[in-house]
Amino acid sequence: MLLKRIVFICCVLIAQNGLAQEHPNLILTKQGVNDIKAQLGNVPLFDATLAQVKEKVDAQILKGIDVPVPKDMAGGYTHEQHKLNYLTMQEAGVLYQILGDEKYAIYVRDMLMEYAKMFPGLPRHPQERSYARGKLFWQCLNDSVWLVYTSQAYDCVYNFLSKKEVKYIEKNLFKPMADFLSVDTPQFFNRIHNHSTWGNVAVGMIALVMDDDALVDRALYGIKDLKLDAGKDNDGGDIFVEGQKAGFLANLEEPFSPDGYYTEGAYYQRYAMYPFMIFGEALQNVKPEVKPFEHKNGVLLKGVDALMNLTDKDGEFFALNDSQKGMSYYTASLVSALDIAYYYGDRDPSLLSIAQEQGRVQLDQTGLAVAMDIRDGKAKPFDKKSLLLTDGADGDQGAISILRSTKNDDLTLVGKNAAQGLSHGHYDKLSISLFHEGNEVLQDYGLARFVNIEQKNGGGYLKENKTWAKQTIAHNTIVQDETSHFGGKYDVGSLHHSDMYVFDVENPDVQISSAKEVNAYPGTVMQRTTVMLNNESFEQPVLLDLMQVNSDKKHQFDLPFYYLGQVISTSFDYEKYQTLSTLGKDHGYQHLWKEGSGRSTTGDAALTWRSHDTFFTLTTTADAEDDLIFGRIGANDPEYNLRPDPVLIVRKNTDSALFASVLETHGSYNSVSEFSENAFSSISKLSVLKSGVDYSAIQITMMNGDEFVFIMSNSEASKTQKHELKLNAKVYTWTGVSYFKKQ
Amino acid sequence: MLLKRIVFICCVLIAQNGLAQEHPNLILTKQGVNDIKAQLGNVPLFDATLAQVKEKVDAQILKGIDVPVPKDMAGGYTHEQHKLNYLTMQEAGVLYQILGDEKYAIYVRDMLMEYAKMFPGLPRHPQERSYARGKLFWQCLNDSVWLVYTSQAYDCVYNFLSKKEVKYIEKNLFKPMADFLSVDTPQFFNRIHNHSTWGNVAVGMIALVMDDDALVDRALYGIKDLKLDAGKDNDGGDIFVEGQKAGFLANLEEPFSPDGYYTEGAYYQRYAMYPFMIFGEALQNVKPEVKPFEHKNGVLLKGVDALMNLTDKDGEFFALNDSQKGMSYYTASLVSALDIAYYYGDRDPSLLSIAQEQGRVQLDQTGLAVAMDIRDGKAKPFDKKSLLLTDGADGDQGAISILRSTKNDDLTLVGKNAAQGLSHGHYDKLSISLFHEGNEVLQDYGLARFVNIEQKNGGGYLKENKTWAKQTIAHNTIVQDETSHFGGKYDVGSLHHSDMYVFDVENPDVQISSAKEVNAYPGTVMQRTTVMLNNESFEQPVLLDLMQVNSDKKHQFDLPFYYLGQVISTSFDYEKYQTLSTLGKDHGYQHLWKEGSGRSTTGDAALTWRSHDTFFTLTTTADAEDDLIFGRIGANDPEYNLRPDPVLIVRKNTDSALFASVLETHGSYNSVSEFSENAFSSISKLSVLKSGVDYSAIQITMMNGDEFVFIMSNSEASKTQKHELKLNAKVYTWTGVSYFKKQ
Ligand SMILES: [Ca+2]
Ligand SMILES: [Ca+2]
Ligand SMILES: [Ca+2]
Ligand SMILES: [Mg+2]
Ligand SMILES: [Mg+2]
Ligand SMILES: [Mg+2]
Ligand SMILES: [Mg+2]
Repeated sequence: MLLKRIVFICCVLIAQNGLAQEHPNLILTKQGVNDIKAQLGNVPLFDATLAQVKEKVDAQILKGIDVPVPKDMAGGYTHEQHKLNYLTMQEAGVLYQILGDEKYAIYVRDMLMEYAKMFPGLPRHPQERSYARGKLFWQCLNDSVWLVYTSQAYDCVYNFLSKKEVKYIEKNLFKPMADFLSVDTPQFFNRIHNHSTWGNVAVGMIALVMDDDALVDRALYGIKDLKLDAGKDNDGGDIFVEGQKAGFLANLEEPFSPDGYYTEGAYYQRYAMYPFMIFGEALQNVKPEVKPFEHKNGVLLKGVDALMNLTDKDGEFFALNDSQKGMSYYTASLVSALDIAYYYGDRDPSLLSIAQEQGRVQLDQTGLAVAMDIRDGKAKPFDKKSLLLTDGADGDQGAISILRSTKNDDLTLVGKNAAQGLSHGHYDKLSISLFHEGNEVLQDYGLARFVNIEQKNGGGYLKENKTWAKQTIAHNTIVQDETSHFGGKYDVGSLHHSDMYVFDVENPDVQISSAKEVNAYPGTVMQRTTVMLNNESFEQPVLLDLMQVNSDKKHQFDLPFYYLGQVISTSFDYEKYQTLSTLGKDHGYQHLWKEGSGRSTTGDAALTWRSHDTFFTLTTTADAEDDLIFGRIGANDPEYNLRPDPVLIVRKNTDSALFASVLETHGSYNSVSEFSENAFSSISKLSVLKSGVDYSAIQITMMNGDEFVFIMSNSEASKTQKHELKLNAKVYTWTGVSYFKKQ
Repeated sequence: MLLKRIVFICCVLIAQNGLAQEHPNLILTKQGVNDIKAQLGNVPLFDATLAQVKEKVDAQILKGIDVPVPKDMAGGYTHEQHKLNYLTMQEAGVLYQILGDEKYAIYVRDMLMEYAKMFPGLPRHPQERSYARGKLFWQCLNDSVWLVYTSQAYDCVYNFLSKKEVKYIEKNLFKPMADFLSVDTPQFFNRIHNHSTWGNVAVGMIALVMDDDALVDRALYGIKDLKLDAGKDNDGGDIFVEGQKAGFLANLEEPFSPDGYYTEGAYYQRYAMYPFMIFGEALQNVKPEVKPFEHKNGVLLKGVDALMNLTDKDGEFFALNDSQKGMSYYTASLVSALDIAYYYGDRDPSLLSIAQEQGRVQLDQTGLAVAMDIRDGKAKPFDKKSLLLTDGADGDQGAISILRSTKNDDLTLVGKNAAQGLSHGHYDKLSISLFHEGNEVLQDYGLARFVNIEQKNGGGYLKENKTWAKQTIAHNTIVQDETSHFGGKYDVGSLHHSDMYVFDVENPDVQISSAKEVNAYPGTVMQRTTVMLNNESFEQPVLLDLMQVNSDKKHQFDLPFYYLGQVISTSFDYEKYQTLSTLGKDHGYQHLWKEGSGRSTTGDAALTWRSHDTFFTLTTTADAEDDLIFGRIGANDPEYNLRPDPVLIVRKNTDSALFASVLETHGSYNSVSEFSENAFSSISKLSVLKSGVDYSAIQITMMNGDEFVFIMSNSEASKTQKHELKLNAKVYTWTGVSYFKKQ
């Protein structure tokens, strides 16, 4: 009894003096472990995840420990082995805590000892392709990811290790690695960039486990008083910008907008979300005074919500900027981010339905909470709505606008009216992409890269990413004189952003997003107004797309539509060529085959295609001298790095024009019953009533004779302003920025 | 009591005298109706189908009756309305019998009266595109389909109609229509062709209901003593062939092989199966003495089984000859055919598992039996096995060979070593197609047509079907001197067929199919040996493909591989062109863009591609002077009727060569985890050890150094023959047609 009392007093003293930090406490906490143990067997989603992880780790333990000397690029053996190692160590650490079986701790310990033996003798990685070569991997980025995961494993087995082992591992592995990733590689550590976020978090996580305040400080605020001009990174991004802050908190402030949009786009946000959230959780556990989830008005939690919304019906991310198609919120980093956001946020029950679809949880107290609440029937549907996500640290650098249909099929428009997006940005001001029921209708090409496929440049970016995917002509937006926005110059593009003009989704049947771009082509103003329309005259939701261009002189303007599917019919005549040549020489035009072209004599041109057993018709206004060009991606593609997707380009030579288009979804085809329904457009005529700086107006005439007029006020966005406009001898009066009515 | 007895005696007398036929008795029988009524509510699949049909028919009844004057092509209003009418009448008739609600009988009666009023005044259909114009539709084919369905409706409501109504309808509608489809249009009725089958069955069905024996006779045996030379039909098929029999039974004998393969291919067999089977059932009910299901050793039942096997893992038909992709055994005609085959066959429980997936049954006693047996847990998996289906009425005109892997992933090879396939045949002797897990790996293009899509030539065949889809170069087989087999001449192709040489699937790990073609190019012998291999040295099943060509003089030989997917890498250098021109001028070559070409200096050439998140590598032998041509479909395609799919063509100029290829399936890619596994081929070298008339031999050298040798005896297929062959100073001895061993 006396002995117990003494032990208790000692513990209290030690805790108060901070002489010994509790372990685990980085992600899993002691309390969390206790709660988990108490619930085991009664939380289906948690139990299922645990069983999967156990099976995986047990299989790895049977294989034995393999810590090879680093040699290969991504996709190669040593790269993949080190990747497997950090994933398995992290999971083995968790299993040790939850299941109490020492074999997991032994596995982590033995592997850490192997790394600690090898690390001091390691030079930088022999592959010389990175601006910041790592030691275990070809780039510091991957070394940092290794450390983010391994820190967690270390924390989980810390109490299992002898003092001697702790000392040996920290001295030979963790401390030198933390220095290597920071002070030894400042061009990697001290940037505003997703690479630096990983570096900051890696250093921060291990610092928290080692209880090294100076190192925590370096992670949070960067290396102080560093001055060097290191030029560009491998993606063409600036390494240092004068006066810029560094460290985790700066990386949290800069690239995230107040709405939680990450300026590089959803694909990189998804990647960055893991270090942000996991370090948020770690800080919350070890240094709650930093208040990571309250920083910048709770931007981390908003970021998770933004990401969930930056997806199509299937949960796949919109292909903004460099983005590999198919990535979705089912990815592991978003399982973790969602669980953490749920736990530290306001326990939004709609997140639970996504967690259910994800089918697994993070194996800590956050995942436990999610799994328990799902078990208890608290999940509600995650209802994706129309949404504006501002860009820029202060939210004043334009925005991503998302319009979602509210009746019948799911039609989703994404407008990129934002900033450049750092080094992963594309030159695609005011570009749009369109999704129907989770399928692409008008695609953004995404990136030109095969992530982790070694044969394709070691899984890294392909040269076609720069020569094609980033270029303006690869997007559904205006190209002037066959030159990309800002001349395709990163330095120039980075200075500017588009500006939102109107985003009004109050009326669910006439949702409007309109934005302007005045810098992409000096002397030219582009304004794009997109309207998501429900109207009983149409079978399905309809997109109106008004691209108003006004310039101080005459130019060639191309507006591409990257429709996906099989051409069914056109309303205009066109010629297909006997030999194919490229559409142009540069700025991405060299990658397009010119397959055919035509002109319309009726004032409009319609293209109907079929995709995923649904019909789509794009009707666009076209004068008799406008070219309607059929193109296909794939020229100057010596290694078949590009997808041979089709495009229809509307080309006008003018100083002012309204590219007005209506996109209908209609009908269906069933290849088993061979029934074809409603394969025809409902529109008989589309015409421009007004094209100008102040107003854009169109008239849609339906097959049944009905007429609709849409008018947009381009220079006065007030909701209360009265307008009166005479078009074709008829006077239209209305209040607010736009007019839409059946005539 | 006395009265009852008298009524009973009268009934017996009437039945015995055949004075009045029982109704319904054509498909639904009185006994069937009673059995169905007794089970209603206790047979989930039957009940569900009934509920669906009721909902559909009730909706149509609410819309009212619409029998428009015929005017439109397929896809147009009058065409679609008459189609809807026969489908709804047939279903309403069934509902009347099962549910007893007179509103269904009234609906059928009123609609029949409308048709009876209109029919006498109808000229042939105003659209003049068919060789056999109908009255309700543009071709007699559709009129026949109308009558096949409507006969069933008529039978179901027969007892509800007054004598006067019966007389009126038969006099004005059914009798003249039966004559119109037969004696008035003999070029349609008296052929061996799927069109005639429909015509025969239409006439036969209505004859059975009207109890008109002469008409039944005409249906079964054709119009007697008819002599005329009517030339070709719209598809280029011969209308009359000297000495050929006609009528239903002849159409059953001629196009079906003893194995139940229908020479036009699976897509048309699926279409033809409905009239064959439904009339089989009708004859079985009304004239069982005809023994339709025993005819030609039970070929109808074998035909259903063959069709179920002519499918990929998803149940989609192999694209043999004119075939629209996506058609599967989930189509309505196969619901009916399967239920009938189950009922009149040996109640094979594996058919029940397909019926389960079909999710509905035919609403008669056959569907009831299927639904009851499924309910009673009798269903067993339908296990698709390797199979040879002979072609030709006597089974001596070659065969379709199907090789299916027996371990790991599902890999399925289809070889077309058969006859021409009548007017829907393609010039594709010895061509192959390959499926992995229900996805195409090496595709057969299928047809060039958009069935029922009005914008595409009214849903009819496109000219590209003849200029492209039927041509040899559109297939994975040899083209000599850029000329299709038989010069692309139907008359010549129809005289010949390939011959099977070996089909041996006894060893599940080394399944062999080998066939010869000596007529496609006089003076040239082609022999193709395909081997489906399971071997532990490969992750997945592997296809060996040995195309041995021996000619009396030197020619240009092209062997295309229509791989589907994204190129990942090649083992050889190639050049992509700056401008594209067509690969040739005629025989389909005019539709291929030549995108690039290369040569290999190592003796072999490998192409790795990715499709559906799986990697595939084709390794093929290639001399330094062989061209490896990258092509793409889509040239000379003025209306975007073709799909822009890729091809790799191996071109040799020689009089004798072995085109030896190995196709590996390997690894996987996950675009959510971005994990790439086993993206590389396991083969380091493929070489020809022997190319000749008597033997073909290859050696496969693996990355790990292992070597395999495969030798095929090309002129001695005996299983007991001993062979001794010296290759590269090594003597190989074996017994049987082939040798395969790790060295
Ligand atoms: Ca990067
Ligand atoms: Ca999707
Ligand atoms: Ca399939
Ligand atoms: Mg882009
Ligand atoms: Mg600003
Ligand atoms: Mg074909
Ligand atoms: Mg023969």
